[in-house]
Amino acid sequence: LDREDPHVVELFTPGPVDSPPYIMEALNRPVVHHRSPGFKAVYRDLAAKMKALLETTAPILVLASSGTGAMDAVVSNLFAEGDEVLVPVMGKFSARWVEICGTYGVRPHVIESQPGGSPEPGEIHAALSALPGAKGVLLTHCETSTGSLADLEAVSKSIADLETGGRVILKCADCVSSFCVDELRMEPWGLDAVITASQKGMVSPVGLSFVCLGERARERAGMLPPRNYYLDLRRYLESSEQEWTPFTPAVSIVYAAAQALGRILDIGLEEVWAWYRRAAGAVTLAVEAAGFDALARRQSGAVVAFRVGGLDAEALALRLEREHGIYLARGQGALRGRILRVSPLGKTRRKLAHFSDSLLRAVRGMPGAPEITDSTISDVHAKIENLLKGRDIWE
Amino acid sequence: LDREDPHVVELFTPGPVDSPPYIMEALNRPVVHHRSPGFKAVYRDLAAKMKALLETTAPILVLASSGTGAMDAVVSNLFAEGDEVLVPVMGKFSARWVEICGTYGVRPHVIESQPGGSPEPGEIHAALSALPGAKGVLLTHCETSTGSLADLEAVSKSIADLETGGRVILKCADCVSSFCVDELRMEPWGLDAVITASQKGMVSPVGLSFVCLGERARERAGMLPPRNYYLDLRRYLESSEQEWTPFTPAVSIVYAAAQALGRILDIGLEEVWAWYRRAAGAVTLAVEAAGFDALARRQSGAVVAFRVGGLDAEALALRLEREHGIYLARGQGALRGRILRVSPLGKTRRKLAHFSDSLLRAVRGMPGAPEITDSTISDVHAKIENLLKGRDIWE
Repeated sequence: LDREDPHVVELFTPGPVDSPPYIMEALNRPVVHHRSPGFKAVYRDLAAKMKALLETTAPILVLASSGTGAMDAVVSNLFAEGDEVLVPVMGKFSARWVEICGTYGVRPHVIESQPGGSPEPGEIHAALSALPGAKGVLLTHCETSTGSLADLEAVSKSIADLETGGRVILKCADCVSSFCVDELRMEPWGLDAVITASQKGMVSPVGLSFVCLGERARERAGMLPPRNYYLDLRRYLESSEQEWTPFTPAVSIVYAAAQALGRILDIGLEEVWAWYRRAAGAVTLAVEAAGFDALARRQSGAVVAFRVGGLDAEALALRLEREHGIYLARGQGALRGRILRVSPLGKTRRKLAHFSDSLLRAVRGMPGAPEITDSTISDVHAKIENLLKGRDIWE
Repeated sequence: LDREDPHVVELFTPGPVDSPPYIMEALNRPVVHHRSPGFKAVYRDLAAKMKALLETTAPILVLASSGTGAMDAVVSNLFAEGDEVLVPVMGKFSARWVEICGTYGVRPHVIESQPGGSPEPGEIHAALSALPGAKGVLLTHCETSTGSLADLEAVSKSIADLETGGRVILKCADCVSSFCVDELRMEPWGLDAVITASQKGMVSPVGLSFVCLGERARERAGMLPPRNYYLDLRRYLESSEQEWTPFTPAVSIVYAAAQALGRILDIGLEEVWAWYRRAAGAVTLAVEAAGFDALARRQSGAVVAFRVGGLDAEALALRLEREHGIYLARGQGALRGRILRVSPLGKTRRKLAHFSDSLLRAVRGMPGAPEITDSTISDVHAKIENLLKGRDIWE
């Protein structure tokens, strides 16, 4: 990596994101020791903010891991070998639930959506009705590989009537990329376990994941023997009562995350959700003007995936990177070479407009590209400026 | 935590450490995407430096976790349920090996040293001779709770003669606090698995741990079924061949760690080891002048633990914190209230002299303290300046 390269490339990826300057400032604060009263105050502050934003009263557990560590912890702490669970699969990240189940001998029943789709409440209800022994459903809010947003509220509420005769179906949701981006309400929606991570809506560095276990999930965890050590959530639950973590946490990232959550509370969470709806809309405007289709039928604010049609996806991505300083995420698995993904996480109006201009200019002149005139570019630019007018939340 | 407080407290703890400015600079670099060629270059650079410093040709696996995650990974990937292992316990961190074994049904045989002691090669040899089925020994290089340094070279070499008739005794070492601090040579000493973490000798933020598996350890891992998902080292081994990590890594901390390792290579690792021997010696001079005894019989450069005798440990620690801006680590478990711990990790000569002056001034006048004159303080100061003269490696 040539560090002397004056051409700075900015990540337009759905995490990690380039943190805004006031988050970097938090990272540079002197570290407090993780066993000191000072750290307890930081932890308490972070947990209180996160509970308010998640709409929950359940304890917040802080893990030094990527989001996958939190997914592993949910499966290995809430389900025993041989337990059946339902897993709606919408892409690579929801498929990871299935892989984790396999490792622990948990038996996943899969309902698969086409790329860009998301599970229908009716399907989930029917599947769980047909699986009277299933002890949980492993949901994915935003499927980061496609930008599809599941309707967690409808799914969760639709299956409430199945919980009769003492049956408990733990509703576990991967909200790694949706927390502080898409509408999410843990207790009102009846979610039992929610996980997220520091590098998405919290626009902080990678390094922390968060697990929030409601009462039914804590009861389940208390009944099962530990399956591993580092991710044994009982240890984190005990430590959270003392307002610290069982193992050394990434203190700097705790600062950064608390700083980001404070800003989101100041702005107002509903305004943040509305911003990301409009930001994803702005990206979609540019994508469609370039002749592409957005992949997701129900679009998350965290990432817009678009089909490149007959164009060479890698050539387009490299052109954006080298000529415009914009790094996009590629398609994964079967979608490799067929889509690109652009994330509005942490981006200002100016940066989103820069993406739009750059995409249209980069596409223009590529073999197989539609004609894109200067007036199309300025027309899209004006529409985006208009769509994003008002408070520029990450400015 | 009062962020407006002008009284800055500096950590003199054995990780996390306050990173020097040139490490903070690395943290503030624009993030590269963890699936881009740019990240491969960063990973390759870090791994090459770490291999050189560990004296190994084995692949370097990068985990987003604290050091405990790496310990968990060693136990759960290299030993099966029912396997016997030997664990020399010298304090809280080596005892953690025993706890992890318990979680996975691995059967630990414990040899315990008194606080401040470390395992004798003869004892280890005798114990492993008496356990012909034991498949490994879980060692701790620097026991961070006491500052004791085990003689890994002698221990490892002493048991080589037991590996006859196809018997393999995997020698696994927790070098979390000793890497880049105390002499450590993975291949020359015959170690099969070494772990470390970002926040100790690499003076970087908490967030990454590292596992290095030699050929015999990789073979063992390949023969066992996966026990967990996030810490399944087979995934990390496969990814390391492509020069990346299976799950999103803390990219900023990879930069910081690579920066620190580059500096250590520039200085010369033997000079770094020598520096820490002298730095721990300087701390010990101050501790003894204050009327205390260092706990460790074989002293690591990472942390000096000292018995406070009849003094109130917490009162002394608070005095150092409030009046001198120095935060010390406390005793843990049975040592709580009986010892304090000072770490020279990442400290300059000026800071170590500040510690010495502060400790002597803080002790003076405490109930039960010996008489400490101004001339004692300046005498110790002069000795420390003399001991640490020459290149100030963290300046």
